[in-house]
Amino acid sequence: MEWFVEESNGYGLMIKVKKKLYEHKGLQYIEIYETEFGKMLVLDGRIQLIEKFESSYHEMLVHVPMLTHPKPRKVLIIGGGDGGTAREVLKHEPDEIVMVEIDRNVVDACRKFIGVDKGALKDPHLTLLIEDGIEYVRSCKEKFDVLIVDGTDPSPASKSLFSEEFYSACARISDICSMQSQSPILQKREFQLILANTSPFAKRRVYLSYIPMYPGGMWSFLLAGDNLDASIDEIKKRFEEREIETEYYTPLLHLAAFTLPKWLEKIVNEYIK
Amino acid sequence: MEWFVEESNGYGLMIKVKKKLYEHKGLQYIEIYETEFGKMLVLDGRIQLIEKFESSYHEMLVHVPMLTHPKPRKVLIIGGGDGGTAREVLKHEPDEIVMVEIDRNVVDACRKFIGVDKGALKDPHLTLLIEDGIEYVRSCKEKFDVLIVDGTDPSPASKSLFSEEFYSACARISDICSMQSQSPILQKREFQLILANTSPFAKRRVYLSYIPMYPGGMWSFLLAGDNLDASIDEIKKRFEEREIETEYYTPLLHLAAFTLPKWLEKIVNEYIK
Repeated sequence: MEWFVEESNGYGLMIKVKKKLYEHKGLQYIEIYETEFGKMLVLDGRIQLIEKFESSYHEMLVHVPMLTHPKPRKVLIIGGGDGGTAREVLKHEPDEIVMVEIDRNVVDACRKFIGVDKGALKDPHLTLLIEDGIEYVRSCKEKFDVLIVDGTDPSPASKSLFSEEFYSACARISDICSMQSQSPILQKREFQLILANTSPFAKRRVYLSYIPMYPGGMWSFLLAGDNLDASIDEIKKRFEEREIETEYYTPLLHLAAFTLPKWLEKIVNEYIK
Repeated sequence: MEWFVEESNGYGLMIKVKKKLYEHKGLQYIEIYETEFGKMLVLDGRIQLIEKFESSYHEMLVHVPMLTHPKPRKVLIIGGGDGGTAREVLKHEPDEIVMVEIDRNVVDACRKFIGVDKGALKDPHLTLLIEDGIEYVRSCKEKFDVLIVDGTDPSPASKSLFSEEFYSACARISDICSMQSQSPILQKREFQLILANTSPFAKRRVYLSYIPMYPGGMWSFLLAGDNLDASIDEIKKRFEEREIETEYYTPLLHLAAFTLPKWLEKIVNEYIK
């Protein structure tokens, strides 16, 4: 195979591949390739991660909620089997990370063939639970400072991750929550489903990142919780005090990412008053 | 043909096509398709425009320089044969637009099969010259308030559009200039070539837009000239006074578009002190 192809509603993304490194059909169909842009993880035919581009996903998913919180000591990650999210969370030196990933094969294959976690998945501050994240959140008795939902596109296996019941439980157990919320332009229906079902959160704001490994290159995230009003000066101060090193994220980009194109602002305003 | 495919350095973009509407091999190889996202213009195998996505290109190319200028009365467009740039410039009601497009077939085919110019190419304020834009700028004795370079990717035919000599002439005849400057991530070499060769301008700033019709979805522009320091309040005021209607652009997005990812800031800082 010379090109890996991902189609999405009349739009396609192709990545030139050099070699297939791994393949496994279990809970999900896992593929790992060597490409022109480094290692690539594919789950059920959807590109999850390419080394050259992944910082614009993981850094924006993680540092936006983590720096909005004044002192995130306890962090919950739902999904994120490749370990990129855990890697970024660890830069904030929290006391405790709980990561709930449903598919052990993703964790094992990513550690063995990609290594994007940079050792995070074996960090002593991280507890990895191989179980259903939705069940975990539903029955959870603890509270977390920050909750990060690092899930795949909606699929038969993951569609409960996009339900109002799940988001309601997330709001109950966390101060601040972030999640990927699909392409607003190529997956408008899924994006709107997330906006409709996240109403249990007191406050919500949509932000964007340039992610060439996802169709269309424009990807959205939702920041949600009771208090999202960190000023740019507070964010800068926290970023410096915690000595965060990044490739993509800056505090100014954090601020700019919430400024949406006019057509997207209109859609968001239909759901968030 | 079911999919149109554009490859760019190991990365590919596919658009599902319904029908080929036009094809002509002349100065450039012109193709026009009906797609899932409206009409699509392709020149020499590169997607130039898709109706659903074009506002994020034309509005950012045009309104950023036009609103940075306090009173743009005379505007020069180099290229822009589809007419989308002229359409956006006309929203500012300038006294005069000169548009210099090298390929009459592009103009005629776009007017006949796409119509994205919304009549702009026949507007009485617009003078359309079918000639080489580089020659025009080199020998030009007039001065323009705003100059917009709406060219294709570098190719044997267009590579002089990326030369220091051309940019030097642009700086001589205009107050403010904007140009598309390629994908900084997938066409880093061309992006850096533009940064290196635009040094004749007194001031330069790079900005970004989400453009799913170009590979990777992240596209860059360069704003250049003697004075680029319009405040957000001035931009807002001009936007309101001129009663500009947009799909993508807002004054806040104008400001946010100059905030670059950290890795890109580093590259830009190597060229712009």
